[in-house]
Parts: sequence; C-alpha cells; structure tokens
Amino acid sequence: MKLDSQSNRFWKRIRSKVVLSDRWITVRADTCVTPENVTIEPYYVLEYPDWVHAVVTDKQGKILVVSQYRHAAERVCFELPGGNVEPGEDAEAAVRRELLEETGIKVADCWNVGVHYPNPATHNNKVSVFLAERPSLAGAAREDPSEQIAWQFLTLGEIQELITQGEFCQGLHIASLYLALRARQA
Amino acid sequence: MKLDSQSNRFWKRIRSKVVLSDRWITVRADTCVTPENVTIEPYYVLEYPDWVHAVVTDKQGKILVVSQYRHAAERVCFELPGGNVEPGEDAEAAVRRELLEETGIKVADCWNVGVHYPNPATHNNKVSVFLAERPSLAGAAREDPSEQIAWQFLTLGEIQELITQGEFCQGLHIASLYLALRARQA
Repeated sequence: MKLDSQSNRFWKRIRSKVVLSDRWITVRADTCVTPENVTIEPYYVLEYPDWVHAVVTDKQGKILVVSQYRHAAERVCFELPGGNVEPGEDAEAAVRRELLEETGIKVADCWNVGVHYPNPATHNNKVSVFLAERPSLAGAAREDPSEQIAWQFLTLGEIQELITQGEFCQGLHIASLYLALRARQA
Repeated sequence: MKLDSQSNRFWKRIRSKVVLSDRWITVRADTCVTPENVTIEPYYVLEYPDWVHAVVTDKQGKILVVSQYRHAAERVCFELPGGNVEPGEDAEAAVRRELLEETGIKVADCWNVGVHYPNPATHNNKVSVFLAERPSLAGAAREDPSEQIAWQFLTLGEIQELITQGEFCQGLHIASLYLALRARQA
C-alpha cells in the first residue's frame, strides 16, 4: 500500500466516556468503528490543551534553554520554555506569557514556525512552535513550588552536545528545535 | 538560577496508587514532596513500555516513511516505523520486529543513535532511535484491523516538505529523524 492521507481510513467514533478527570489529566474512552467495520473498544484518548514552545535567540544567536525536574522520568531535563494554551488565549499570547512566567523574559519579535503533534495516537492536542528574537529581562520568574526552573542562553553547538549527552532529552522539544532551525535556514 | 542537572531538585515519592489500568493505558497517582518540603498530590504518571523508532535508508539514501490513521488526533499521519518494546525484549530486537510487522521489511544493519523521552513530565518511558541500512522485503506486513499501515521510501527533501506541510507531524518522530540525521553527519 502506497502512502496516502485519504479520509477513507478514518474511524467513526460512536461513543465516548470520560473515565478519569482531574486538574492535570482527562482520559476519554471511545468506542470506534474502522472502515473495515471492526469495533475498537475502548480506545483511550488523553485530552490536553494545546501546547506552545519558544525558541528564543539573543543577538549573538544563542538560544534560551531551561532546566527543571520532571517527575515522570524522575530526572532533571534541559528543554525549551513553553507550556499550555489557556482557554480563550491564542498561541502567541500563550508563549509570551509562559516565557515571562518561567524566566522573566519578554521578547520583541515572535512568530510561528510550525506545528506538530505530541502523540496523535494518544493525545488530542498540538504543539505550536515559535521563533522569538530581541529578548529582554522584564522581571522575576513566577514562584511555583512545582516548577523550579533554571535558564541560560547557549550556543547551538552546546545544545547539540547536550542532545548527544542525553541531557536535552525531551523528544517534543528536540522536534521544536529542528522546526525552528529549518525555518531559520529558509 | 543557572542551568544544572543536580539531584538536589529531585522530588521524593512517598505514595503511589494505580488509578486506571487497562490493556493500553496505566495511570499512576503519586504523592510527592519537593526539596522545599511542598507536597504535590496527586501527580499523575502515565506508565508505558519503552518505544523504538527506525530510520531505515535504502541504497539511494531514501528513508522509509509509514502512514496510518491516528485516532486521538483524528487524522492520518506520516511517521517513522516503530512501536513498543515487549517485556524481556531488547530495543534492537523490538525495532526489527516492529519493522517486519508493520511493513514486511527486514534490515541487515541496525544501530542505536540516541534516546529521548516522549514526555518526561507525564510519561515514565523512553524512545530508542535506530538507524538501519540494507533493507529487503521479507514478506507481508501483519494484518491488524487497528493498524492499517502504508509505507514508501522518500528522499530527505520529500520528508522535509511533508514536515513543512504538517503531514509528517508527529513530534516524537521528527525528533528521532533529527537524531538520526545528526548521527549520519557525525
């Protein structure tokens, strides 16, 4: 079978039930029917708000990297700044707000360079990726006991070394960095 | 605060309870205490087996791309072949098995080029990325009503165009492609 993106492969969703819902998680169980008339039940979907990532470069071309403890992997990870899009908020407003909250940095210029899916098999949300330039320190980062975030501007070579060492290790952030680097080359 | 990966930011996990467990999903609720002695409760962790992705190149340097319907995003996505590491299986055996099951292709050479985390905030698993060469068609792909998978070898330029168009759109697979491209350059 050759590659295609035809809609004739779509499943029909005939029933949905939220089986777990709390502040940070929503799990939906769907009953689906495939084009071959096979019933798939339950198919679990994790419902999340859309996410945003920022690739902020300073005038030397260094890129802003944050680090924080990530409990599911039980380790500290080096990442891009980013977070949730709040209800009623557009993605650019969200990325500017998250950047300010996490690092105290604001940016003069900010534009979208692509979108990807965290996991289209299990998650219903998207990640919007922004390139941002002309950063300045606008104040202190937000105090949040569940988010102790460090930050620093690093050269691309330093970040690539952190990727090789497995320290800049969150897959979605590696994807966003790649989209931003491709957009910067274009 | 400057970047660091010190263990003094680790949370202590003092209690765990599985709150949802079914064939395709396990949700664990942890009670944690931060280094500042703040209790975080519940913190949800999605438990998954480790995953594997394959970047298979043929002798023209084209790369194997698969496409399939992904129900959470309700769309067809272009991706790399891959899947779960089964209990007791090593990652290379898993990637060879998944490749054969999804496409009927076996490869002569296969080596690990890196590891990343699907989401270290919410998932407890890793993705191992393999570069593979000298592919040959070994038989038919597995018949699975929940996985109707098409495949094709594409040039890197064609894949980059699919990324720009938002068709090769699964973030974790974009990250794995980037790791493989970097390894191939090294």
